[in-house]
Order: sequence, then C-alpha cells, then structure tokens
Amino acid sequence: MIRFSAKSIDSLSYIFRINLINSCTGFKSANLIGTRSKDGISNVAVFSSVTHIGSNPPLIGFFTRPTTVTRDTYENIKETGEFSINHIHESITVDAHHTSAKYDKNISEFDMTNLEEEIKPGFRVPFVKSSPVQIALKFVEEIPISANNTILVIGQVKELFVDEKILNDDGYLDLTKANVAAINGLDGYTIPKLKERLSYQKPEKKSA
Amino acid sequence: MIRFSAKSIDSLSYIFRINLINSCTGFKSANLIGTRSKDGISNVAVFSSVTHIGSNPPLIGFFTRPTTVTRDTYENIKETGEFSINHIHESITVDAHHTSAKYDKNISEFDMTNLEEEIKPGFRVPFVKSSPVQIALKFVEEIPISANNTILVIGQVKELFVDEKILNDDGYLDLTKANVAAINGLDGYTIPKLKERLSYQKPEKKSA
Repeated sequence: MIRFSAKSIDSLSYIFRINLINSCTGFKSANLIGTRSKDGISNVAVFSSVTHIGSNPPLIGFFTRPTTVTRDTYENIKETGEFSINHIHESITVDAHHTSAKYDKNISEFDMTNLEEEIKPGFRVPFVKSSPVQIALKFVEEIPISANNTILVIGQVKELFVDEKILNDDGYLDLTKANVAAINGLDGYTIPKLKERLSYQKPEKKSA
Repeated sequence: MIRFSAKSIDSLSYIFRINLINSCTGFKSANLIGTRSKDGISNVAVFSSVTHIGSNPPLIGFFTRPTTVTRDTYENIKETGEFSINHIHESITVDAHHTSAKYDKNISEFDMTNLEEEIKPGFRVPFVKSSPVQIALKFVEEIPISANNTILVIGQVKELFVDEKILNDDGYLDLTKANVAAINGLDGYTIPKLKERLSYQKPEKKSA
C-alpha cells in the first residue's frame, strides 16, 4: 500500500490532490441537475454528489459551492425553489460531462450539447429526455458546511419518473438494466454490472 | 415512464418505498466504516452514503441516524474522534453486507464475519485488511439535518492508504482495477467497469 499522510497530501500538486481526494471515497452517483432561471433560461449541470438522505419523507441532497461553475444551479434553485435530478447513462456521458464547462448564465447547456430538454406538465424545470430516472424536487433547505464553505442543498421528491423496464416488483430500480453510469473521481465514467442483491441481515455468525 | 407522485409515494408499502427511494439517486459508494469504542471494542459497518465534500482541506462526510443499527459507529466516533473508511470490493460484498445486522455494542463484527481487522501504528481505529483504499479520519463536525433527524458526520483525512496498482500518475485512483463495488439501493452490489476518462471541459458547442 502507498501511504499519504495529511502533510504529504497538503504538499501535493493541485491536480494530483483533487484527483486523489475525489476518487478516494468510492464510486459516486452520476446525475444531471436541471434548473430554470427566473428569466426562463434552462440550465443543466453534471453533479457527482447527489446522495440519499431519507425515504420518509423522500429527501435527496447534493453539495455545491456558490462560487464555482455550479453557481447557476444553486442560484436558480434559490430563485425558483425547484430542480430536477436526471440519471446519466452510457449513451450521454460525453454530453453530460461537457455541462461542467463554464457557460454564461444566459446560455442553456441544452443548446450547446446533444442533451434533449424535456418539459413536463406542472414543472417549470427542465428534465433530460433520455434519462431512465427523472426526479422533480422542491427545495427544502440549505445547510452551510463551515469547514470548507460548501453548501448541502436538500430537496424533497415531488414526482418521480422511472423507465418501467428497470422497476422490480419490490420497488427496487435495477440501474444496471439502463446502463446508468457511476463516476470515479472527477472525470472517470464507469458502467456498473449487477453482481447480486443480498437479503436483510440478522445477527448470525458467518463461517469461512 | 412510470410516474410516482409525492402522494402515491406516501401511500406505498414500507418495503416498496425504501427500495424505490434508496435506488432513485443513482449508484452509491460502498464503504465499511471502522471505529473503536472507549472500552476497546472494534466495530465495522457498511455505509452507502460516504460522499466527497472537499479536497482542500480533504473532507469526507456520511449520513447517519443516531437511533438505528449504525448508532454504534456514531457513538464511537463521538467518543474517540476517529474513524476509518475502507472500500468494499467484489470478494467481500457478502461479509460487508452482513455488518448491517444489529449486533450488540460489545460484539465486534470482525468476530462475526470473515472480514479481517487490520491495526496500523498511530491509529486506535481498525481498518479492513483487504480494502484497496483505507482512509484514517479525524472527526471534524456533525451537522443535524432537521428535515428528518439524520446527522451529517464530517471527517478530515489524516492518512490515506491505497493499493499501488490502482494509483495513476495524476493521482486518479482507478477503482475498477481493484473491483471496488458500488451499491444500488439498499442491497444491490454492483461492480463498475471503466468506460472512459473525459478531459477538462471548456465552453464549445458539441455538434451531433
């Protein structure tokens, strides 16, 4: 094993450090967050920090920094109180990744990529048409992380759209059936294959 | 697409709802968190909410609920100020998942599974021996999520151990080379395959 101390991490070059620390937590969710500005401009941006927070009520969070390229997403959510989460799948990884480019707020990433904007009745925010899982959320709260000035944005699921071919009888969405991506680090797109579903566990010694 | 409204999600059966909401955010990181109680009992438990928060300082968070099976992990971190994060890989998914069983605090999951405990000089917390990425962290802060009474626990990386075969020249850890798992929902273990690494993106229209 190669060992990095806190001190040696501090002294790494910028690129080496962000690659190392972004890939050391394991695989990350691969989502496009859709928003609309109060002026009606659509925005779509790739996020790898979307995380399940709770099932009842259904709450989902993501981390953002108000000073980076994802500022438009954050500002639009604060302005309109709504956002959408759309899964990235194998066919759209290149276009999805391109939404990380710093476009002006008056330019829609839908116009600059092959991602197709989908409008659904009842929602102002755009969805990504081909995504096998599309979630409409209302903004619930933002929690400042004082340790590094990031913000945890929390939304509640208002509506959930799923491709019927990935929905199991028990509510489980088999994301591997739609070739949903998982992100490794900042820029590695992977496609997971299902190994197994395991049962609910009770205390009982496992022997070798 | 199948549509679930907020109202229809509320009326789903418990099992259907937790499966659906836990799998709708995309793939999740698959980690074992190692802790030790003040009485010296080791604990290791599976978590799918470990998330990158920042690279400078290197901060990692996870969500927990103080009233569930993961209470031991939370209490131990509060008692000792330390924890370890260890990647779950293909060979240990069954044992890793078994750590979700509700064992008493005086029982170490290392004694009830085939997971092998590794002690490293300078750290009281246990690591998981075969994990290709092992991280020692110090507790930084806990942030209560009032919307559902969960807690975001944040730690700072004190030391990072990585299998040299997955470390690229630019700091990127290629987790697919070590068959690291990603979790789908509550109980689906998947093994991602690398599709591609993409470059840093600048504004530029992509044509079809």
